[in-house]
Amino acid sequence: MGRTEIATLGEFGLIERLTGDITPLQGSTVKGIGDDAAILNYAGRRTLVTTDLLLEGIHFDLVYVPLKHLGYKAAVVNFSDIYAMNGRPEQITVSLGISKRFSVEELETFYSGVRLACEAYGVDIVGGDTTSSLTGFTISITCIGSVAEDAEVCRDGAKVSDLIYVSGDLGASYMGLQLLEREKAAWDGSGDFQPDFAGREYLLERQLKPEARKDVVEALAAQGILPTAMIDLSDGLSSDLLHICKQSKVGCQVYEERLPIDYQTAVMAETFNMNVTTVALNGGEDYELLFTVPLHLHEQMKGVEGVHLIGHIAKEEQGCYLMTRDGQEMQLRAQGWNPMAKE
Amino acid sequence: MGRTEIATLGEFGLIERLTGDITPLQGSTVKGIGDDAAILNYAGRRTLVTTDLLLEGIHFDLVYVPLKHLGYKAAVVNFSDIYAMNGRPEQITVSLGISKRFSVEELETFYSGVRLACEAYGVDIVGGDTTSSLTGFTISITCIGSVAEDAEVCRDGAKVSDLIYVSGDLGASYMGLQLLEREKAAWDGSGDFQPDFAGREYLLERQLKPEARKDVVEALAAQGILPTAMIDLSDGLSSDLLHICKQSKVGCQVYEERLPIDYQTAVMAETFNMNVTTVALNGGEDYELLFTVPLHLHEQMKGVEGVHLIGHIAKEEQGCYLMTRDGQEMQLRAQGWNPMAKE
Repeated sequence: MGRTEIATLGEFGLIERLTGDITPLQGSTVKGIGDDAAILNYAGRRTLVTTDLLLEGIHFDLVYVPLKHLGYKAAVVNFSDIYAMNGRPEQITVSLGISKRFSVEELETFYSGVRLACEAYGVDIVGGDTTSSLTGFTISITCIGSVAEDAEVCRDGAKVSDLIYVSGDLGASYMGLQLLEREKAAWDGSGDFQPDFAGREYLLERQLKPEARKDVVEALAAQGILPTAMIDLSDGLSSDLLHICKQSKVGCQVYEERLPIDYQTAVMAETFNMNVTTVALNGGEDYELLFTVPLHLHEQMKGVEGVHLIGHIAKEEQGCYLMTRDGQEMQLRAQGWNPMAKE
Repeated sequence: MGRTEIATLGEFGLIERLTGDITPLQGSTVKGIGDDAAILNYAGRRTLVTTDLLLEGIHFDLVYVPLKHLGYKAAVVNFSDIYAMNGRPEQITVSLGISKRFSVEELETFYSGVRLACEAYGVDIVGGDTTSSLTGFTISITCIGSVAEDAEVCRDGAKVSDLIYVSGDLGASYMGLQLLEREKAAWDGSGDFQPDFAGREYLLERQLKPEARKDVVEALAAQGILPTAMIDLSDGLSSDLLHICKQSKVGCQVYEERLPIDYQTAVMAETFNMNVTTVALNGGEDYELLFTVPLHLHEQMKGVEGVHLIGHIAKEEQGCYLMTRDGQEMQLRAQGWNPMAKE
């Protein structure tokens, strides 16, 4: 047997290789691998399923991530995938691999975060699996949700001339992570070390306690607007917008000057000597919604708060570009957060 | 914060402490934590959800578990949970944490096992998550299935005087594991070591490539028999029967002479100087179905092949006992395979 290193394929290439030729056997499988969530048809009601696996040392560092926040975030990122299908999360299962160094009280703290998220979003914990782990803390959460028939929004529906919107702001979570890493590096191991987070609370909150944009999904529904395509931002705007473009077989143009960036993100990028546009394009874990709507709904979109028009969909042959402030065209690349490639 | 060691609670005590007071928020949640699978009601059709987390070094040892078998087994144990609810598995999600030492080809081998199981049982792979792991190989599988309304069989429906049946035979998987461990210990690290498995193929197959008892569920349906309670044997007959008794608030009597044990299991237990009844009661991973049916269906049950009448349900105050060959009463204890307690 030959040996192909996983890093040569990357995460998406690997998934394509392992699952690319799978064809559904069950009539209840409407859509399988390749979107934010799978779509199942159980008795005419659309059921959504998504799952995430979080591993210590890869997805979180317990040196600076409080267990309660970790539980909250682990649940919310799954809800976000369901909202990104225009759905409503209803149930989760929580599986944990627990190392001996954890006490019952620490696990309760983690669980209290999961439960806080479930209460905030109206989701039930319906099952899971708990086992010991010889190594790090392992979290696997699966979320089941619902969406009305013909209301599901996939990644493949964007059309030429559609407008591209994004909710909230970009890059703050990534800057929060950089800040935490800096303070961890500065930590001398003593108990009375005081990390310097003054004035950076927003960045920390975006990294440690992100929210899913339930409000945006509800605001769109209230306006009677059904996006043509939607995805939640986990890998970064650039990477996630390319998912929509690739699956919709279209191109896009987004405008640098329109990228929503918080003041703290900009200041922090300056401090770290990073290009803030690069941070906005490639910083992961924003958990904002990126979606496209037909051009004629432009006026109606003004009734949806907290979202920003950042560009439009173009023909596939026009490619995917960022139009910079100084009038240059810069090709978008999937340089987002990708643990497989980083190995 | 106090520190309670997880080992003091055990797996079930821990789950109870973390989730005991959860009450459903969603109308679609029919039954949450505490059975083989959760029951959801999506538009009147019952949807089942179950999940398993498998960690290297805890649940499998890649020294002697071939990757294709591991993939097959990881899928099948989830199907088994759905069948144990009298359901039909329809979809799975597969999340993997992969260490750098794996090649793409090795992952394909693992995946070919998952896919073989899916084809054999008519199940679709609809999603998952793939990430790198700094430590061991991590597998999290969630299975979604369906069951007709009022046809779900839980653990809490056993009634006094019901008959207790178990499919297949007991303890073979555990003896297969002992055999593999023995040969691993005997292995000198050389490439030309030949493990001694002659005449023990059945035990290895039960450990490495178990099957879910779809056939038993179908045979029961063909006879028009709906069990009053059912569970699949993952922790061992004793532990799993106690789950039924505890949740149904009943006692039980099972007969040593009626426990179905394969010839190879008996011979191997003799070789290892183990009591074969203890192996049958406490050996885990049989993935057989244990279920109860009303006494008056005794004649009809003769039409169901491959199942064995091993005892009957008694009043709660009568306790849970094994009646030994020499007429003694031995209290059943949950001494099954429990990785949490073993730490």
